Amino acid sequence: MAQYKLTYFNVKGVSEPIRYLFAYAGVEFEDERVEKDAWPKMKADKPFGQLPVLDTGDAFVLTQSVAIARYLGKKFNLSGKDDLHNAQLDALVDHMADLQSKLSKALLGSQTPAEIFARGSIPPPDTTEIAKFENELLPIFLQKFNAIAAEGFFYGSQATWADVYFAGWIDTLETRLKNEILGSYPNLTHIKRIIQETNTVQNYLEKRPFTTM
Amino acid sequence: MAQYKLTYFNVKGVSEPIRYLFAYAGVEFEDERVEKDAWPKMKADKPFGQLPVLDTGDAFVLTQSVAIARYLGKKFNLSGKDDLHNAQLDALVDHMADLQSKLSKALLGSQTPAEIFARGSIPPPDTTEIAKFENELLPIFLQKFNAIAAEGFFYGSQATWADVYFAGWIDTLETRLKNEILGSYPNLTHIKRIIQETNTVQNYLEKRPFTTM
Repeated sequence: MAQYKLTYFNVKGVSEPIRYLFAYAGVEFEDERVEKDAWPKMKADKPFGQLPVLDTGDAFVLTQSVAIARYLGKKFNLSGKDDLHNAQLDALVDHMADLQSKLSKALLGSQTPAEIFARGSIPPPDTTEIAKFENELLPIFLQKFNAIAAEGFFYGSQATWADVYFAGWIDTLETRLKNEILGSYPNLTHIKRIIQETNTVQNYLEKRPFTTM
Repeated sequence: MAQYKLTYFNVKGVSEPIRYLFAYAGVEFEDERVEKDAWPKMKADKPFGQLPVLDTGDAFVLTQSVAIARYLGKKFNLSGKDDLHNAQLDALVDHMADLQSKLSKALLGSQTPAEIFARGSIPPPDTTEIAKFENELLPIFLQKFNAIAAEGFFYGSQATWADVYFAGWIDTLETRLKNEILGSYPNLTHIKRIIQETNTVQNYLEKRPFTTM
């Protein structure tokens, strides 16, 4: 039986980077995917009434997707090399999370993907806002992300949890935008390829359920 | 001359917890507060075109308020006692940051406080959304925060960066809601009091400029 259990909705959303981390590290985990009818009954038992949660297998249940990813990064020896490097990686991942929130807002209005999924109906996307996100905001950040990956990975020549997080994040973004978005960013394309071509990640990608978000 | 320079708008916003951390640790910092007319000229020089940024004094400029706070927490010996404790504190602070984003949305629409401040005009607040935040959403979280502070501080009997962050966060929230909100939460009131009554924090609170957000 796997030590870890990740519980989230049956979407990529904010948890795909966590699933990538397990896959990249080659660590088994129970990938619990909650369908919308089951969620209302489970909500009250979750520490903050939200998903994702990670059961660490030793009586602790962690919340918040980025905090979970950073914790697993530490456990899987994918942290930065010192405090400053860690802070740079933390900030980078928070920039990714901010961008994902902005895309969610354009796609789904003020509700989170989890809320929408739980409700079971998706409002019409705001096409003006999506175009602004994809053509104006996102390129500003991708260009900066690309520049800080000049040594092969983010802020260095070794893959960290932020690189793995990025590969899962871009997977979610490309799914939600229905578009490949890394064409002009060779360093980012390199990171994505290295992570996705890892055997254990390949295995995960082949077996995960198909989802549209 | 102070080693550290924090640059942010002249508001509490997402940076007041960082200012509290410096004050609590008794570490001098340059508290650079940008007025709205100065920002457009500075924006292009900032790593991601956003504030806050922290100049660490050794050629590095960090971004993202929570990443900066975590980094300073580490430097000031205010981290958790192990990886799990750190993950719990990380998640807790991310819950606070999420709540603050939701309040900003109710108060300011889809713009961030920084954007509003830079623009210089504030839209009318959405009173229905503010009431929902204050009377429905916030109490759910404060009750949970209060429960995990049963030993005196969050997840334990020693103050960490998350407790200091909380004191700065609640200061910002109370300012923005124009209301004291910790009456029913004795453990949270205790944390706020211990942090705010620290001499060096008192000194900071007395000398900081008055701001309405």
